[in-house]
Amino acid sequence: MVSVMELNRLIDAASSGDPRALGRLCSVVEQGDASARILAAKLYPFGGKAWTTGITGAPGSGKSTLVSELVGDIVGEGERAAILAIDPSSPLTGGAILGDRIRMSAHSGNSNVFIRSLSSRGHLGGISTATPAMVACLDGIGFSEIFVETVGVGQSEVEIASSADTTIVVVPAGWGDAVQAAKAGFLEVADIFVVNKADRDGADATAADIDAMLEIGPETPWRPPVLLTVALEGTGVDALAAAVREHREFLVASGELKSRRRRRAAHDLSMALRGSIDKSIDTDEPTADLLDAIVTRRTDPWTAADRLLYSR
Amino acid sequence: MVSVMELNRLIDAASSGDPRALGRLCSVVEQGDASARILAAKLYPFGGKAWTTGITGAPGSGKSTLVSELVGDIVGEGERAAILAIDPSSPLTGGAILGDRIRMSAHSGNSNVFIRSLSSRGHLGGISTATPAMVACLDGIGFSEIFVETVGVGQSEVEIASSADTTIVVVPAGWGDAVQAAKAGFLEVADIFVVNKADRDGADATAADIDAMLEIGPETPWRPPVLLTVALEGTGVDALAAAVREHREFLVASGELKSRRRRRAAHDLSMALRGSIDKSIDTDEPTADLLDAIVTRRTDPWTAADRLLYSR
Repeated sequence: MVSVMELNRLIDAASSGDPRALGRLCSVVEQGDASARILAAKLYPFGGKAWTTGITGAPGSGKSTLVSELVGDIVGEGERAAILAIDPSSPLTGGAILGDRIRMSAHSGNSNVFIRSLSSRGHLGGISTATPAMVACLDGIGFSEIFVETVGVGQSEVEIASSADTTIVVVPAGWGDAVQAAKAGFLEVADIFVVNKADRDGADATAADIDAMLEIGPETPWRPPVLLTVALEGTGVDALAAAVREHREFLVASGELKSRRRRRAAHDLSMALRGSIDKSIDTDEPTADLLDAIVTRRTDPWTAADRLLYSR
Repeated sequence: MVSVMELNRLIDAASSGDPRALGRLCSVVEQGDASARILAAKLYPFGGKAWTTGITGAPGSGKSTLVSELVGDIVGEGERAAILAIDPSSPLTGGAILGDRIRMSAHSGNSNVFIRSLSSRGHLGGISTATPAMVACLDGIGFSEIFVETVGVGQSEVEIASSADTTIVVVPAGWGDAVQAAKAGFLEVADIFVVNKADRDGADATAADIDAMLEIGPETPWRPPVLLTVALEGTGVDALAAAVREHREFLVASGELKSRRRRRAAHDLSMALRGSIDKSIDTDEPTADLLDAIVTRRTDPWTAADRLLYSR
């Protein structure tokens, strides 16, 4: 538990660009205790201005390199950008730290780009409950562009779409039938498709494949573009940056941004509730009575949920 | 929306063993609307007696075959067992349906084994919100053994451990360094490790590898056994059934079952809240006001969550 005075000091220092204070602030948020909630609640009123771009894709699709390149193209003069890289690697293998160092090196000369790796390992729902608070804090501090990078497996692509304004799905060239299943999930969340490593065989076929799947899907006001990039050489990154800007203009003009931000509010509230409930398992907090009532079957989870939400 | 009279009829018929009524009841639960909540709430008071075994593992580890074999060994005379197979395959590829048929065929002559595939594709948190209700219903109807099978990627292995009494992690023989990362997640949730396809090269090495990782981990009152099976031939399945029974006895005797059931109550409550909140995004339900307040930054998700949970 960090004192409120110290939290205020961290906010001030981080807002004025002190990288060490920012790192410390993120550590507090990542730990997810009462201090994290105080920070997020303090900074939340000042947020809502940042554009959040989610980048997801299969392992090995080259997401990290692409994000690194994209940041340079998107961030305007005097703006600050943050990259949150959610790394499923275990600390045993050092994955998160290694990835962080590789990412850092590309922007080591640029103090306007803040990079933070979060390990998704750990306690129940660890990363899911910390990510919204981290985004809220960076937003409140004044970062105008926030990139959240996740490995697209299981539910994470849905999670990221709930937290982002624009979702980019990255697939490697040559992506085949074996991952048809994953495609279906990706199709629902992608605002922009990127076929990366486009200098490899099969890039055009992969792009055509995705295009065909979009063709047979339901008609939508925004048709996700399918772009080709070679992130390692920076090829196609300017077109991607343009697509992100175009999608942003579409969301604002169509009014869809409003419903997306509402969806994000619902997601963040769900995560906050989950965090609170998880904590109460081992404590004497008031929710503990409710859990007792469920365990002894005096009530059930659905009735309890409705009572919490609607009996005010 | 199904009428309450019809829901009562479904409960009666399903409880007395009518397979069609049971299938229909599960469909209502899977749809996740108000009828699903009524069903789950109605059946919840009668539950708490079933043993829930979660089986998770990498794709291709042979989970489905293993569960199929295990059911026969675990279910006692006159008992009823259910297998919920959560299938990440897209309906486009027919994965869920095909998997279902394969599983069904093994138990086609046995009316005491109920098998249901759930596609994890679909709307936000789709499967996560439906699974607890499905388990609660089957438990309340009188199934004494419930198996929940999921593909272990991303967060799903944590999800299943939150919903199960005993969690079995299945790894294929020859499992190598490439999945070290996943192992760390598995280590935290496994009550029993199974190295399946143990007639292949590398089975003993894989088992030794897991044993070594358990050795360097924190000491725990229950040391997960590492078992070898060849599910396709039924080899080692009796030892696995014995291990599940032993783990059950340990949980009961040590009092740990109590804290697990409490953890499950917390998980189910979180999922129920999430389901309610997600629904309220597009409706006029009371929570909608709260989402508005968050979107306009008059409050924040963490303060709102605390108010919901603690201001009663």
